[in-house]
Amino acid sequence: MQQAVIAIHGGAGTITREAMDPAREREYTEALQRVLQAGQRILADGGTALDAVTEAVRLLEECPLFNAGKGAVLTHAGTYELDAAVMDGATRDAGAVACVTRLRNPVLAARAVLDHSEHVLFAGAGAEEFAAAQGLELVAQDYYFTQARHEQWQRARGTAGMALLDHDAAALAARKNPAVPADPIDPDSKFGTVGAVACDSRGNLAAATSTGGVTNKRVGRVGDTPVIGAGCYADDLVAVSATGTGEMFIRTVAAHDVSAQMRYAGLPLEESARRVVMEKLVAIEGRGGLIAVDRAGNVTLPFNTEGMYRGFARVGEAVNVSIYG
Amino acid sequence: MQQAVIAIHGGAGTITREAMDPAREREYTEALQRVLQAGQRILADGGTALDAVTEAVRLLEECPLFNAGKGAVLTHAGTYELDAAVMDGATRDAGAVACVTRLRNPVLAARAVLDHSEHVLFAGAGAEEFAAAQGLELVAQDYYFTQARHEQWQRARGTAGMALLDHDAAALAARKNPAVPADPIDPDSKFGTVGAVACDSRGNLAAATSTGGVTNKRVGRVGDTPVIGAGCYADDLVAVSATGTGEMFIRTVAAHDVSAQMRYAGLPLEESARRVVMEKLVAIEGRGGLIAVDRAGNVTLPFNTEGMYRGFARVGEAVNVSIYG
Repeated sequence: MQQAVIAIHGGAGTITREAMDPAREREYTEALQRVLQAGQRILADGGTALDAVTEAVRLLEECPLFNAGKGAVLTHAGTYELDAAVMDGATRDAGAVACVTRLRNPVLAARAVLDHSEHVLFAGAGAEEFAAAQGLELVAQDYYFTQARHEQWQRARGTAGMALLDHDAAALAARKNPAVPADPIDPDSKFGTVGAVACDSRGNLAAATSTGGVTNKRVGRVGDTPVIGAGCYADDLVAVSATGTGEMFIRTVAAHDVSAQMRYAGLPLEESARRVVMEKLVAIEGRGGLIAVDRAGNVTLPFNTEGMYRGFARVGEAVNVSIYG
Repeated sequence: MQQAVIAIHGGAGTITREAMDPAREREYTEALQRVLQAGQRILADGGTALDAVTEAVRLLEECPLFNAGKGAVLTHAGTYELDAAVMDGATRDAGAVACVTRLRNPVLAARAVLDHSEHVLFAGAGAEEFAAAQGLELVAQDYYFTQARHEQWQRARGTAGMALLDHDAAALAARKNPAVPADPIDPDSKFGTVGAVACDSRGNLAAATSTGGVTNKRVGRVGDTPVIGAGCYADDLVAVSATGTGEMFIRTVAAHDVSAQMRYAGLPLEESARRVVMEKLVAIEGRGGLIAVDRAGNVTLPFNTEGMYRGFARVGEAVNVSIYG
């Protein structure tokens, strides 16, 4: 019997102690702890890694602090478009949805694709029809609304009209008008993906990832989150969930590359993940991080940004949560 | 100066000499030759691998014999939904579109994403808006129509309503009603992706892939074609374009795995591609093949089906085209 473990992230970016007030910091810390405890309980009860990561990401989607599900960022058109994926290392089966606009929990739709479809990836209205046929909850776009994200979008729109990664919006607003303090919610959302990886007591691995994308993104833009091998990947060696400038994670096939270096070059988990995050992504100006767990239960949480909301919890041990570098 | 080379495929599946009449066989052979000659000319004139693969796939999209662009298969709803991707090994930049319904040449949209967008992947209407803003040609759905694909779809609809891979449609029709001979076009289209890979005279690599998907597929289903690392991938070592049961190519991250085995395990091109097609895909019942070229100009075209429309052409040498195993 393996000592089961779950790790989660809530996005990476320019998170500094100076930009964060104590009340806000406590909110994030407690949210991460609650999610980890829920995943820990599933694993302690003999649940699968797949069930633990699905539930952890569902809870992160429900939490308005993070850029996934409720609390997602807005597109250039002022709409919400969400992506999610889940992969089961035991079977190497996967499910993903892209550009969905009406699903309360995109990760549950990804899981339904894994469980109930011969396909792996659905986009747009077809994804929603499939999810609705599986009995999943549909919501109006208003459901995703939070005041903080809306203000962030308005600031991003006020610039040259570029897609701004979440943190940049706050930094730019502060720079353009020093009298406007950076929104306290901005520091948490630059690369505002959420994700989870787990190793269960049978040594099986799983990964799940979900996101609202980047603030003010073009309609139809899909990042690395629903791309199996880029933002989400699991097999018999390792499970990986990534967060960052999605395009760079797609181009480097980042999550699969962690596994490939372990399998073919014999690198240990930590070194394999470090090379992807600190060397390969950096070489093409990719920013962000990833969380990964191997079948021996080793955990690594590297990032090349100032901070990443993250944590892990082994069954029977205390929960670990961190924000800064 | 490297001797430049281009390779293409027009899909893999149950292609047997018995099911193919000589006139049809000549049509396919000549179409593949024409496309290879066009790619060969670009490379001979000092063009880039990226330009050669984009043009080769554009020509395959224009040809109604293949399941991409004109001649694409129909979804369950009787509509057309197309996917395409292109990747430049020299810069490791990529562009892809998924679920597009109004673009004459999806591969040109993928190329426009690579050239003119900070993003890598666009889905649905957002992809079309981007392509239209880049001046690319929009068409009505009628443009994609061919009588042969429509009849194939009608036969597939007549079955249990499952998504049928193109060849299966013909095989099933023949089985259900032995008096109805298999449509001569069916043997060409089972895994009816098209693709190209090339190595130019500077030793730079590129890959492009385009598809209409599988006959009678669910609306919104996206296969491996626009998933960078699965159906299309290029870097400084190798360029890969795949065709087959897309879900299995996504789950094995097939195209990137060819590169990873070369880079980390030191395997030569042919052995690396063989392991993916003949072992890893087979282990999860994945069927199809891939074409790959490395920076030394080596070419490999493995498939685990009875046939694959394929060929390659080195600058200054005769064009090679094959259909059967």
